This record gives sequence, structure tokens and C-alpha cells, in this order.
Amino acid sequence: MSDTSTSTARATATDAAILAVLDEHAAAHAARDVQRMIAPFTDDAACYTLAPPLQQGPDTPYGTPEGLQAWLATFDGPVLIDYRDPVVTADGDVAFVHTLTRMTATPAGATDSFSFWFRSTYGLRRIDGTWRITHQHDSTPFHMDGSFRAATDLLP
Amino acid sequence: MSDTSTSTARATATDAAILAVLDEHAAAHAARDVQRMIAPFTDDAACYTLAPPLQQGPDTPYGTPEGLQAWLATFDGPVLIDYRDPVVTADGDVAFVHTLTRMTATPAGATDSFSFWFRSTYGLRRIDGTWRITHQHDSTPFHMDGSFRAATDLLP
Repeated sequence: MSDTSTSTARATATDAAILAVLDEHAAAHAARDVQRMIAPFTDDAACYTLAPPLQQGPDTPYGTPEGLQAWLATFDGPVLIDYRDPVVTADGDVAFVHTLTRMTATPAGATDSFSFWFRSTYGLRRIDGTWRITHQHDSTPFHMDGSFRAATDLLP
Repeated sequence: MSDTSTSTARATATDAAILAVLDEHAAAHAARDVQRMIAPFTDDAACYTLAPPLQQGPDTPYGTPEGLQAWLATFDGPVLIDYRDPVVTADGDVAFVHTLTRMTATPAGATDSFSFWFRSTYGLRRIDGTWRITHQHDSTPFHMDGSFRAATDLLP
């Protein structure tokens, strides 16, 4: 096709804009800034997080700014989020990103930090020129040995 | 805009085509037909499933047709997949879907079936006119009470 280079340039610009949303989300965690953490999400975003219930909302522990603030208070210092090679798939004003994610933090009052890996998918829409997160899905798998333990010990 | 009705018609047709992919995926499970189960996925699809590891692939237990066949053999009769109100977000040739999903099955040799709910996200691309799954993310959250138990007992 004659417009391959243009399409590629567009794709690259779109990818960069979307990866910037993820970078900002990580920076907001490092800064422990709840307003920055929630800023990229639309009001009706469907969030499936590591914690119950199946979907967060205004009536769930981690579905509100206050809930996120309480969660941050369980850690001392920055909450570090690292995305490993996120893959962006986009067309027009819709995109999704999948990535493995490492979180590193120090429980409040503890000396040592912990790290663990999970899977993240973000769904985004470009609204009035700005990429917003309309869907988030974070998870670990669970062990299929009858223990039903969350597999928080996996490495990429 | 003048083409609102046309856009809506297009969106409805796209939504229907994508929901048909999910319906076929569920029907393939009910029929215990591995080839039908994997048919909608691209070869390089990034699959984050309920089982470890973080991502399935050709070297993982559930990353191959043989692995899926072995998984099906752990159940007697159909594996029933029900999607609850899946939400499609699409533009051009890219789409993502999020939904809560219920699986019902009877362990091999058991008398009673079990059901549980999890969260599903599908990422899709339209390739040569056909919607294909390039990303799947299924999960339960886990309990934040220090037990790290997978939360397989949640209801929508």
C-alpha cells in the first residue's frame, strides 16, 4: 500500500501516546499520588484488579480514591510499577495494551521490600484527543494443584 | 454528525461479529472440541489464563492443543461457558471485550458439577475480514487477608 510509511508513523505516535499513559500511571504510584493514579480512567471504567470483588466500583474497597489512599497507606515509600515490554494494539480511537508488570513496595513498618509479577491488560479510548483508560485487568493465575493459592511467585 | 445512524449500524454489526466469536468459543467448550476452541486465536496470541505460568505458550501446560485436550479430560461432559453482559469497544480493525464469565463443569468421575465466576478480557484484530483473538486474559482476584487464596467463590 502506498501509505505504509504514514501508517507506521501514525502507529508509532499512537503507541507512544498510549505508553505515556502507562508511564504516567507508574509515576503516579511512585509518587503515591491518588489523584494522578485515577486521572487517566474514565468515570465508568471497568476495573478488574488483584483484589476482590470481581469488579471494582464506588462501593468496593479499592474502587474509590479513599480506598486507594488506604491501600497506599499499607506501604512505606514509593510503590514501584515496572512494565515489561508492553504491546500496544490500536486502530482509530481504540487500543488495548497487554504486559507483564512487576510491583515493588515495602509494607508499612517493615524493613524489606517485596516484588511480584502479574499480568496487566488496559483498554483505552481516545476521547477529545486524549487517550483514557476505560478498562483495566490485573491478575495473577492460581495454582492448579488443589490449593487454589494465587501464584504470586512467578517470574517472566 | 450526519452519519450517526450509519456509525451506529456499523458499530452494531461489529459488536455482533465480535460477540459471535465469543459465542463460538463457548460452543467449542461445550462440544469439547479443541480445534474449534483454538481456531479464533492468532498463532502469536498472548494468553494470560487462570493457570500458571504468567503467559501460556508452546512450552506450557495449557499452551498447546494437547494441553487443552488433557485439561478437557479432567471433566466429564460439556464445559459450559456463560458470558454475562460482555461489553465490546471497537474502532476500525481493533476491538477489546470485557465480561464476567461463569464456567460450569463436572470433574471426571464426580457426580456433581461446580460453577465459578471469573473475569475475561479479549483483544481482537480484524485480519482479512475476520475477527481473530490476539489476546486473552482470564482471572480471579485473590483474597487480601494474607491467605493469598484465589477468590473462586465470588458472585457478580
